[in-house]
Amino acid sequence: MSLLAVGTVAFDSLETPFGKVDKVIGGSATYITLAASYFAPKVNLVAVVGYDFDHNDILNFQKHGINTEGLQIKQDKKSFFWAGRYHNDMNTRDTLVTELNVLEDFDPIIPESYQDCEVLMLGNLTPSIQTTVINRLKNRPQLIVMDTMNLWMNIAMDELRHTLTLVDVLSINDEEARQLSGEYSLRMAARRIHDMGPKYVIIKKGEHGALLFGEEKMFYAPALPLEEVFDPTGAGDSFAGGFTGYLAKIRDYSFESMKRGIIYGSAMASFCVEKFGPERLIGLSYSEIEERAAQFHDLVRIV
Amino acid sequence: MSLLAVGTVAFDSLETPFGKVDKVIGGSATYITLAASYFAPKVNLVAVVGYDFDHNDILNFQKHGINTEGLQIKQDKKSFFWAGRYHNDMNTRDTLVTELNVLEDFDPIIPESYQDCEVLMLGNLTPSIQTTVINRLKNRPQLIVMDTMNLWMNIAMDELRHTLTLVDVLSINDEEARQLSGEYSLRMAARRIHDMGPKYVIIKKGEHGALLFGEEKMFYAPALPLEEVFDPTGAGDSFAGGFTGYLAKIRDYSFESMKRGIIYGSAMASFCVEKFGPERLIGLSYSEIEERAAQFHDLVRIV
Repeated sequence: MSLLAVGTVAFDSLETPFGKVDKVIGGSATYITLAASYFAPKVNLVAVVGYDFDHNDILNFQKHGINTEGLQIKQDKKSFFWAGRYHNDMNTRDTLVTELNVLEDFDPIIPESYQDCEVLMLGNLTPSIQTTVINRLKNRPQLIVMDTMNLWMNIAMDELRHTLTLVDVLSINDEEARQLSGEYSLRMAARRIHDMGPKYVIIKKGEHGALLFGEEKMFYAPALPLEEVFDPTGAGDSFAGGFTGYLAKIRDYSFESMKRGIIYGSAMASFCVEKFGPERLIGLSYSEIEERAAQFHDLVRIV
Repeated sequence: MSLLAVGTVAFDSLETPFGKVDKVIGGSATYITLAASYFAPKVNLVAVVGYDFDHNDILNFQKHGINTEGLQIKQDKKSFFWAGRYHNDMNTRDTLVTELNVLEDFDPIIPESYQDCEVLMLGNLTPSIQTTVINRLKNRPQLIVMDTMNLWMNIAMDELRHTLTLVDVLSINDEEARQLSGEYSLRMAARRIHDMGPKYVIIKKGEHGALLFGEEKMFYAPALPLEEVFDPTGAGDSFAGGFTGYLAKIRDYSFESMKRGIIYGSAMASFCVEKFGPERLIGLSYSEIEERAAQFHDLVRIV
């Protein structure tokens, strides 16, 4: 059984206090599938790119065992492009350029070979596209996880509300949780979001870790304090990839399993920020990942 | 053997989005000693107040078994007074009034009965007063913990640097750690602060919990996500009181014991913010405290 990940595959130009890179591969589905590829037996990608996306870029996914049959290539348009600059604190950034290009009329196609989807990860996209993907699956996946962002709360709240009724887990950051719920307390925010549909709510707090709420329980996975954060781009999506990839591997969707998934997600996010773009997610070893996950366990352990 | 706590005993006027109170007892030593009183067999207070501090106020300490022999009462001056207003996010506040009054020429007196000090908690005060207290103890305590604030980094950095060479543990918040060290990464900040003297560094991150660094190890105690934070005043001092009170009780100053101390400190801080001023720290039961500490353990537990 497989993990299906839908989201953006894009080119990013990134500037942080440590340097800058031009047009590296990015986008939510890139980080999600790369991170998930270390766990899930099958990772199926649904996304769209333009004529500027070349064969080698696709090979990078395939080398990680990621199925790209659902990656559409539009010959008349360019790929989605985003340029951003991070401030010194790395927690805030300015968007310099956003060119939607192929995203303007993205109609996600689900290949027949993807229909065995057990875990569906809906990366950040318009809520209506997320809903379309759910509707195009013949059987409901065992677990549907979605990400979203404040933009959709501002311009497509009704659609977002509808998508929320269809999913099991919402994974968003603290600011977004506050905006969506109208509550400052994250515990109250999670309660409001439960009422909107998702049985489980993950609130990502960046360098402060991540919270899981569900079944009247709470779990807090702190982030590992790092000596240096090189580039935060994709950390949240790497988290989602590690989380859903792990769950697709063990095929157990209990609260306890989700806790372990959050540790693996946090581990993948901690790798992601160590280099520019998704570079650090390429060619990791399993022992590196287990060692990093063990550091997360040690961080809170009291003997 | 005893815990000696030095700091301010003051009147505070507090305004939060939930309401306001006028001239409630506050100050770092108030929160430290009240929180510590649930753990340490003997808590000795060193502070100064003015003629406006009445007998009932002192009784409040004594009811908690806190020794007030070292609490000086100046008949010609008023007590230290602070008024502040918290913003909606509760993480930032404006100081409206600061009247030093008795603090202007505070000369800490250590009664003979306090000389059996095993753990010394130096609450936030001018670094030179903190140093004076250390010098006035005939034997060096087993453990010296200090708090400080950015004000002293701005106006008394040399004195602060000297005090830092005399203590075992520095307990400060994330912003202060960054200012003191000149490092944004808290892990790097802790390393720089180790070089300044303290073998152990606790970095308090408010709603995001607290980090302990020492012996080349790290520990992260997340804060319990609360439904409501009523008034954050004194949370950091309650934390310090729970931490040092617990250590004075078990008389073991290893990294592992400090971890447990941080959980108790976090538990006391979580009580503190539930009501205005130190109200919630008065008359707690031991079972309430153990139950709260258990919630902190559960929050990160993976079975």
